Amino acid sequence: MSEEGKSQMFESAELGHRVDKTTYDQELPALREALLDAQYELVEKRGFQVVIIMSGVDGGGRRESVRLLNEWLDARHIDTHGMGEPSDEERDRPPMWRFWRALPPRGRMGIFQGSWYSRAILDRVYGQTKNADLEEAMERNIRFEEMLSDEGAVILKFWFHLSRKNQEKRLKNLEKDPLTRWRVTERDWRHFKLYDKFYKTASQALRMTSTANAPWYIIEGTDERYRGLTLGKIVLDALRKRLEMAAPPARPLVNMPSLPGVDNRNLLRNLDLGRTLAKKTYEQKLEEYQGRLALLTREAGFRDISVVAVFEGNDAAGKGGAIRRIISALDARMYQIIPIAAPTDEERAHPYLWRFWRHIPRRGRLAVFDRSWYGRVLVERVEGYCAEYDWMRAYNEINDFEAQLVEHRIVLAKFWLSISKQEQLARFQAREQTGFKHYKITEEDWRNRDKWEDYERAVCDMVDRTSTEIAPWTLVEAEDKNYARIKVLRTLCERIEAAL
Amino acid sequence: MSEEGKSQMFESAELGHRVDKTTYDQELPALREALLDAQYELVEKRGFQVVIIMSGVDGGGRRESVRLLNEWLDARHIDTHGMGEPSDEERDRPPMWRFWRALPPRGRMGIFQGSWYSRAILDRVYGQTKNADLEEAMERNIRFEEMLSDEGAVILKFWFHLSRKNQEKRLKNLEKDPLTRWRVTERDWRHFKLYDKFYKTASQALRMTSTANAPWYIIEGTDERYRGLTLGKIVLDALRKRLEMAAPPARPLVNMPSLPGVDNRNLLRNLDLGRTLAKKTYEQKLEEYQGRLALLTREAGFRDISVVAVFEGNDAAGKGGAIRRIISALDARMYQIIPIAAPTDEERAHPYLWRFWRHIPRRGRLAVFDRSWYGRVLVERVEGYCAEYDWMRAYNEINDFEAQLVEHRIVLAKFWLSISKQEQLARFQAREQTGFKHYKITEEDWRNRDKWEDYERAVCDMVDRTSTEIAPWTLVEAEDKNYARIKVLRTLCERIEAAL
Repeated sequence: MSEEGKSQMFESAELGHRVDKTTYDQELPALREALLDAQYELVEKRGFQVVIIMSGVDGGGRRESVRLLNEWLDARHIDTHGMGEPSDEERDRPPMWRFWRALPPRGRMGIFQGSWYSRAILDRVYGQTKNADLEEAMERNIRFEEMLSDEGAVILKFWFHLSRKNQEKRLKNLEKDPLTRWRVTERDWRHFKLYDKFYKTASQALRMTSTANAPWYIIEGTDERYRGLTLGKIVLDALRKRLEMAAPPARPLVNMPSLPGVDNRNLLRNLDLGRTLAKKTYEQKLEEYQGRLALLTREAGFRDISVVAVFEGNDAAGKGGAIRRIISALDARMYQIIPIAAPTDEERAHPYLWRFWRHIPRRGRLAVFDRSWYGRVLVERVEGYCAEYDWMRAYNEINDFEAQLVEHRIVLAKFWLSISKQEQLARFQAREQTGFKHYKITEEDWRNRDKWEDYERAVCDMVDRTSTEIAPWTLVEAEDKNYARIKVLRTLCERIEAAL
Repeated sequence: MSEEGKSQMFESAELGHRVDKTTYDQELPALREALLDAQYELVEKRGFQVVIIMSGVDGGGRRESVRLLNEWLDARHIDTHGMGEPSDEERDRPPMWRFWRALPPRGRMGIFQGSWYSRAILDRVYGQTKNADLEEAMERNIRFEEMLSDEGAVILKFWFHLSRKNQEKRLKNLEKDPLTRWRVTERDWRHFKLYDKFYKTASQALRMTSTANAPWYIIEGTDERYRGLTLGKIVLDALRKRLEMAAPPARPLVNMPSLPGVDNRNLLRNLDLGRTLAKKTYEQKLEEYQGRLALLTREAGFRDISVVAVFEGNDAAGKGGAIRRIISALDARMYQIIPIAAPTDEERAHPYLWRFWRHIPRRGRLAVFDRSWYGRVLVERVEGYCAEYDWMRAYNEINDFEAQLVEHRIVLAKFWLSISKQEQLARFQAREQTGFKHYKITEEDWRNRDKWEDYERAVCDMVDRTSTEIAPWTLVEAEDKNYARIKVLRTLCERIEAAL
């Protein structure tokens, strides 16, 4: 606190703001009507989602504000999340998983009481983390909210504040009244003793994360009417401003050049596609590695890790076959195969990575992605299904996403199965001629083939930008299926062994 | 390294890229001509600046690339900075000061051999810092480059790479030849021993800071011709793309609402402007605090800190008078007063904060800003002199700037001198009637006065967003000049005492 006992960042919220009953009663009906109108327009247009965080000091009015919004608006289109202690389901995944799964789809509002800020701030207040940890968590929050904002979401972050004095008064008043005494627990006073520490930490967190597109609104919590009107007006104003915009604001790119191909070399052309494995060796190695994989997943330590295997590759490169060789070694209760095709309506209504986050496995399990989040920087880029800015930002979002997986002890193995253009042609033709494989070849496959060089470029860029020290790509020479399958199995075994 | 000895992030730069002499000689003339054309357009239009970073492993071709660009382009419009060890001038300021002062103005190119990445990466390689330090430094670099990009600059970051094997071969070849043996020092072999550590750290740094508007270009350094052509083509492509754009790409805002004024209270109206100090007490306190200030600046510890005092306030609130009361206590060699008026041409050609960074004092000195970097969120916001996005992002840039000052042990005292609208009127009228003060009152002052409420709003937002726990604002009741001057002096003394 400064020399006069003022709280930086919170000064405006310690002025004794207050609204009298007459003014409140006068303003409320129009506000509520306007809020409902705006909400129905949101629901109807489904153009964006609204993410609301309610936080602040105890007794500042978080809970009441959640109640108010649910009362004033049509609660059928609101998801309220009281994010307390994580469930065991949640603890088994990276910390952000629970927030991803709770994100509202376009057209809805999600209210978070307890958010991606709570844990990091409390841990710091209780001295369980260092300042650097807090800063890192806040940087991650900035990136998370930037992603939400890029996806078009409106983000409203409310912090309800009480001055130290008012906080103390509140607790004493509650204690005096025999009817409310029970509400004041020892925990409340313990919290109160940490007030200064809490205030200081929160002040730092709010300063760091108050960005142009996701600013914090600090609201004085003492007077119920002031608090309510302020909250309602901000929500209304934000909804209206966003509803007026035809589309989510796309960030323009400086349009940086990519690495020019001044010679003919690239990662894919550099692969030795002549590698083969004779049938006999293959069968012998297959048995060996499948056995090894089966044993590894039965080790005690495996219960503390999980595995995410990602398969990308040219059409007809043999992803399905490689995947089958993996799972046939495993107990079916242990794994899940996630084939990624066009997104469902529900998936489309959420931020891009949502449909992959939802399939992140619990500890002790494996998830095998047949195609993956890399679709954005491959097919979506090449076919122009998304704006340039969107696939450009995807590299960083993906690296950040994968870093979260790896930090949570998820073994992440990413395979690119590579075949030559001629081999692809041969396999396409063979598929057309083989009855039961006929369904595997479509018009689209032929169209993609015409853009071979564009895809090649996209793959090289993808590997350059996302083959990181924590989540490397494995390029697999897949001209010979036997060779490819064994390389995949061996790599997977080695990665799991290294993690155990 | 992965199982096959590949270096993630650098895989594409270990393929043995190479361009034969014929191709090179064929392509070069056209490339050079196009580069010169683009540069002259840049120089003529002065629409943006180009910031180029040359980095990478020893022997990868950093130095040669700097030379190439200076040879191919018109070197008169290029500033080349070989950023080695900082000078004592530089060590006396926050680490980023030397890079800020070296930033090129619009129309020029700045080439940095040694950049805001070097120190952080090397410190980490030599084990002098933790991983969290590296991550923090990289986050700061991202923000710095985001600022540059928002200001319209083109940022090109080159990383010249050699594989471990090629690095070793290079050193051995140099040693074999009696003519070049002298070039290989023990330091080179020491560096080489750290190759793996260096590669790992660099890989992490590059991954973190490869953003859409400022990506890293990783170029294989072995073949001179490949390296040169690639470099030239990227520079050309980037220049052309940006020259085609009419204006720097402005980032659109979601346009978030600001806190509504649902009651009549705000920070400024809450000040008790009735506070006064009788003449006698004033004179006594003035002597007391001026003496204290003089003594404080003579303390041995003062040589390790410095002071930046910022004065903002209503027109005619008495900033000048308060400043004079401070400096009259000081040795004139110790302080500098920086009056901030409209920017010069040179200042306008640089990023916004450049003209403030240049006045940051050495250790043991004081800088008094009569108006400051807050102009952007006050007059520029209210008068519409800059786009909304630009003043919105200024809050975060300012907080980041001030955090760097404070981390460097600079005492930062920020004063807002507040008077009432009536008192301002009285002072304006008095100035118009007093001969020697007549110059102090202009048409503009009267115009600003008409926007009293807009300015009030801007001041409250400014304090809310930038009165941080590390750099608090002091609001000064300035209706009575005596009271104001003593409050300023007392606050300044206390802040310096706390720092010593």
